[in-house]
Amino acid sequence: MENFGDRLLAAIDAKRSSCVVGLDPRMDWMPTFVMDAARAGRSNDEATRAAISSFHCSVIDAAHDLIPAVKPQVAFYEQYGIPGMLALIDTIQYARSRNLLVIIDAKRNDIGTTAQAYANAFLGNASDGSAAAFDGDALTVTPYLGGDSLLPFVEACERFGKGLFVLVKTSNAGSRDFQDVMVGDGPLYSVVGKLVDSIGQKVIGSRGYSSVGAVVGATFPAEAKELRRLMPHSVFLVPGYGAQGGKASDVAACFHPDGHGAVVNSSRGITYELADLSISETKFQALVRERVVRMAEEVNAVSRAG
Amino acid sequence: MENFGDRLLAAIDAKRSSCVVGLDPRMDWMPTFVMDAARAGRSNDEATRAAISSFHCSVIDAAHDLIPAVKPQVAFYEQYGIPGMLALIDTIQYARSRNLLVIIDAKRNDIGTTAQAYANAFLGNASDGSAAAFDGDALTVTPYLGGDSLLPFVEACERFGKGLFVLVKTSNAGSRDFQDVMVGDGPLYSVVGKLVDSIGQKVIGSRGYSSVGAVVGATFPAEAKELRRLMPHSVFLVPGYGAQGGKASDVAACFHPDGHGAVVNSSRGITYELADLSISETKFQALVRERVVRMAEEVNAVSRAG
Repeated sequence: MENFGDRLLAAIDAKRSSCVVGLDPRMDWMPTFVMDAARAGRSNDEATRAAISSFHCSVIDAAHDLIPAVKPQVAFYEQYGIPGMLALIDTIQYARSRNLLVIIDAKRNDIGTTAQAYANAFLGNASDGSAAAFDGDALTVTPYLGGDSLLPFVEACERFGKGLFVLVKTSNAGSRDFQDVMVGDGPLYSVVGKLVDSIGQKVIGSRGYSSVGAVVGATFPAEAKELRRLMPHSVFLVPGYGAQGGKASDVAACFHPDGHGAVVNSSRGITYELADLSISETKFQALVRERVVRMAEEVNAVSRAG
Repeated sequence: MENFGDRLLAAIDAKRSSCVVGLDPRMDWMPTFVMDAARAGRSNDEATRAAISSFHCSVIDAAHDLIPAVKPQVAFYEQYGIPGMLALIDTIQYARSRNLLVIIDAKRNDIGTTAQAYANAFLGNASDGSAAAFDGDALTVTPYLGGDSLLPFVEACERFGKGLFVLVKTSNAGSRDFQDVMVGDGPLYSVVGKLVDSIGQKVIGSRGYSSVGAVVGATFPAEAKELRRLMPHSVFLVPGYGAQGGKASDVAACFHPDGHGAVVNSSRGITYELADLSISETKFQALVRERVVRMAEEVNAVSRAG
């Protein structure tokens, strides 16, 4: 299986962009062209699935040639129950059919065989080698349980050519509570970062990046700079751009001088924040495209990629 | 809504037991009476759902009058995709119909509106006040993201009479990597424990326990003793009993002198570890019952409850 780090770098080069679009289903924010078409002749559950799936098809059609990957956020799908989870599968499959990598943002983890079950669910089935039920290219996971909890995921990355992004320094204000506590002469996030970098050594690809990356928020540029130094082989998945207040200048520290080393995500700033929900699909797709192009220009200007 | 801490204490008193049975679907460990009945005349997906659901109905029927709660582990359901998630809903509904509390072990969390979406999915829907799609009585969550990430869940507990168990000190060896790092003059798990106890103050019930509890592994009794002192109002959900090596003497420290303050979980030690998969349903249910009775005797002996 081709290494995920290599696959991600190739996609970034091909699209000349390190920007990722986050897909967060929120029924009450969706344009009426989506809702009206989804409801026609369908039960409520069928309409929910159809709305989420078709909305994301519309976003993907608008942006697929401009971005290396999309990032569905599972929480927003899960809140809609089975119709939401069916729509997650639809969205993953459609994105991959349009040649996009899919980073499943689920922040899963547990211990031992339970961690293995999550790896089975999202990366590839260890017991029979088949595709995962929710078959993405990479998964976000949490580190609190410790290094041994990450190993089943890393093994799945190696076996199935998949990737992992471990939470290291998140974009919220409360990330200070535990991530910033001083452990000896450094903050906890640096301890986590070093362990993640170490675990990722066995899945470094030909481009020098590991399949095991890190989530590093755009809202803490000084911390990002420190982590960039401590984790030279990790790709950073950078949330918090746009709606959460992160600016292009803030994400600069997440990149290496060669313009690689990070993917920057924006979700609602690309797909929602619509002045008028009655926007036509044509105008919606033009707006999505315009926003993605602008974000890529901003990020490329500071990362020197593209 | 009645406070979850009160509901849990009432269930423990009624059943004279602080033992919880973990429900982890593993198709290859299930007795043949389950698999044969599930496969008859069904598609593969339908058989998967039927097997998981009927296996857990059998366990619940065998043990429902002996235990206050069951703990479905979502990872094991998720690995079976949509049929697994349908079976999760089946299992939750059946357990609640048999008057059991349902602790959904999903170890979810995220920031801001995404944490809210997980609370919507598992505790109750904030936007319209309706039941959650996966409608349990309590949910396990991870703390790494910090205090603000926990607040949407605590609000849902207050509004919907639900409970939360935050990972504090887990039962795996790797829990030492981050949970045990020294922060000032105490380990990180004590910092996390104190913040969890503080957040739980606003949902303390009439019995003196908060709806916000903590996951504290049975495999670290000294740490459990320290946390019991630091978190007087938190119920501990104690995994690691049985198959993971935790013994009754190890869980004693999780209880207050009055015999309350913890629920102890065993999963595969109750429902699997079958000498012969061709066991009949009658004998399987007798075995489950015998194991649950023995575990309750062991735990009651050290907790002085019951």
